[in-house]
Amino acid sequence: MIVRKQGRPTAARRSLSRALKGVRLFATDVDGVLTDGGMYYSESGDELKKFNTRDGMGIKLLQRAGLITALITMEETKLVMRRAEKLAIPEVHQGARDKLAILHALAARHGLTLQEMAYIGDDVNDLEALEAVGFSAAPADAIPSVLEVVTYICRKSGGDGAVREVADLILAARPEKKREA
Amino acid sequence: MIVRKQGRPTAARRSLSRALKGVRLFATDVDGVLTDGGMYYSESGDELKKFNTRDGMGIKLLQRAGLITALITMEETKLVMRRAEKLAIPEVHQGARDKLAILHALAARHGLTLQEMAYIGDDVNDLEALEAVGFSAAPADAIPSVLEVVTYICRKSGGDGAVREVADLILAARPEKKREA
Amino acid sequence: MIVRKQGRPTAARRSLSRALKGVRLFATDVDGVLTDGGMYYSESGDELKKFNTRDGMGIKLLQRAGLITALITMEETKLVMRRAEKLAIPEVHQGARDKLAILHALAARHGLTLQEMAYIGDDVNDLEALEAVGFSAAPADAIPSVLEVVTYICRKSGGDGAVREVADLILAARPEKKREA
Amino acid sequence: MIVRKQGRPTAARRSLSRALKGVRLFATDVDGVLTDGGMYYSESGDELKKFNTRDGMGIKLLQRAGLITALITMEETKLVMRRAEKLAIPEVHQGARDKLAILHALAARHGLTLQEMAYIGDDVNDLEALEAVGFSAAPADAIPSVLEVVTYICRKSGGDGAVREVADLILAARPEKKREA
Repeated sequence: MIVRKQGRPTAARRSLSRALKGVRLFATDVDGVLTDGGMYYSESGDELKKFNTRDGMGIKLLQRAGLITALITMEETKLVMRRAEKLAIPEVHQGARDKLAILHALAARHGLTLQEMAYIGDDVNDLEALEAVGFSAAPADAIPSVLEVVTYICRKSGGDGAVREVADLILAARPEKKREA
Repeated sequence: MIVRKQGRPTAARRSLSRALKGVRLFATDVDGVLTDGGMYYSESGDELKKFNTRDGMGIKLLQRAGLITALITMEETKLVMRRAEKLAIPEVHQGARDKLAILHALAARHGLTLQEMAYIGDDVNDLEALEAVGFSAAPADAIPSVLEVVTYICRKSGGDGAVREVADLILAARPEKKREA
Repeated sequence: MIVRKQGRPTAARRSLSRALKGVRLFATDVDGVLTDGGMYYSESGDELKKFNTRDGMGIKLLQRAGLITALITMEETKLVMRRAEKLAIPEVHQGARDKLAILHALAARHGLTLQEMAYIGDDVNDLEALEAVGFSAAPADAIPSVLEVVTYICRKSGGDGAVREVADLILAARPEKKREA
Repeated sequence: MIVRKQGRPTAARRSLSRALKGVRLFATDVDGVLTDGGMYYSESGDELKKFNTRDGMGIKLLQRAGLITALITMEETKLVMRRAEKLAIPEVHQGARDKLAILHALAARHGLTLQEMAYIGDDVNDLEALEAVGFSAAPADAIPSVLEVVTYICRKSGGDGAVREVADLILAARPEKKREA
């Protein structure tokens, strides 16, 4: 016999819910999280990345709910800066070899602890950051060693709405929900 | 024993069929519906969206059947205008913060009620419009809160033929079918 | 008890095999067959289609086996001409409103019957051509009315190897196989 | 009764492990392996390929572990050279009609045997090279005749992490693992 213990959350669920409620800064990797990992190279010398409009809406909804939003990536491109400007993301950190150091700098600047941060990453260079924050997540198609350490594994893959999925989780956990655009 | 009650449509099916038959204007969101939500940014400053030739054919078939076709999007790009011109879509509304207001304006201009309109959307800024029209639909990969309110959830995702699927439904419900190109 | 009647092909299989052996000209639609239907529009005014290297290899293998290869599309773009030149496809017919008429012209020019032609298409404007040739095929994601009339439904979708799948079928049915590049 | 014989590897597993441990040079095809086979053509005359950031990380991890990395492709494009430069791949061989001959030249230059090489390919023009090396692999969506001859069939498809999957296999088989970036 299966009993759904609604109203009696398990320790795990209570803990997840508490971590989500405490998030005041939302940081994400770019390639493989805001994109499917695709890096388009053109014969004329151009380079492209494919972002997702639903992730963009998720970031806007987080901002309206009062969260600080941040991008942290090892790459350095003008196109990521343009995407960030389009979404009015205030904290954009490119060329980041030590992502955990960036999180510490963000904590100092905004008067936050790492426990009050969410971070989404997909590869080995995200491991330190993911293990340090209060709420960590990875797209469904992240590298296995990443999937092992995160608080939450998204049902969605990178570029296919993983960031929106986490944004909606954070917004749903807040006492006063602001999910409408 | 399973009996297929052909010729004896249920109330739900009768209602769906009636809504489809009454459609005289077909409006759709762009990003996430006519596309998979992808927004391509290039290092040289360009931006791209990926449309689908089968959706294009669906829009042409609706026009040949006498329907008014419309695009309604919050974004503002020249590329959407070029796609609309290629398909000879007469009503193109970009930068639309209030999509329901656009539908009311279209109703007034064409002497239609909102009950005579179909609208396809995928995200929270489509909710008001979706709840106001006679026939509402969403691609399979729409945001959960959108899937909850629409008349019809497509089997296809955005950019993968969701618009064509709805176009074919509307055309199949019409007394004199015009499905051949 | 299940008995595999190897060596005793059914009428259907014999007929399929006969149709494949007789193919001397291989014609295909472009959008939705050699591509996934995607039409990329850029803000700077550019337009792109995505072809598949394995389809390209399939077309080269057919040419080496002595078949005439052809593209027939309603669209008119320079990029399709460049793809055709890359693959040395001798018969490229763009802006084709009446695809069956093109097949008749090809038959006259090359001294072939339509029974000696294979054609792959995915949408309603391919129906007449598909019903006229000796061997007709459609990608797995073709429009339902197309799937109903073709000799063979590919396991692969458009742009994902459907053309290569048909090419390999034709090559495998030939007495002297030439499948190596 | 099912018994998992942990610690008692089968002959097949021992052989796979031995082949992986011996790899000192990692070579891969480009189209269909480092990409999903997509070849983007633009109306303005440009051409693009889509690479994957996780494959790129896999190649960097192999280099850090001391392996020689190589690209071998029949195509000839500037964009592949740029991708190779980004990843600091020392051996880039384009326009390669005879891939096995390239492997022999690499063996001579680096004082290696073909048994010490890994090669990933997806199509008929990779068959000779795949059959000659110590460890051969193919993306899940490779051509059937390729899948038949390789040592290892990836769970991932081309462009979706097949190269990273093989890189991680090679790294995991090494006595001193260096998997962190």
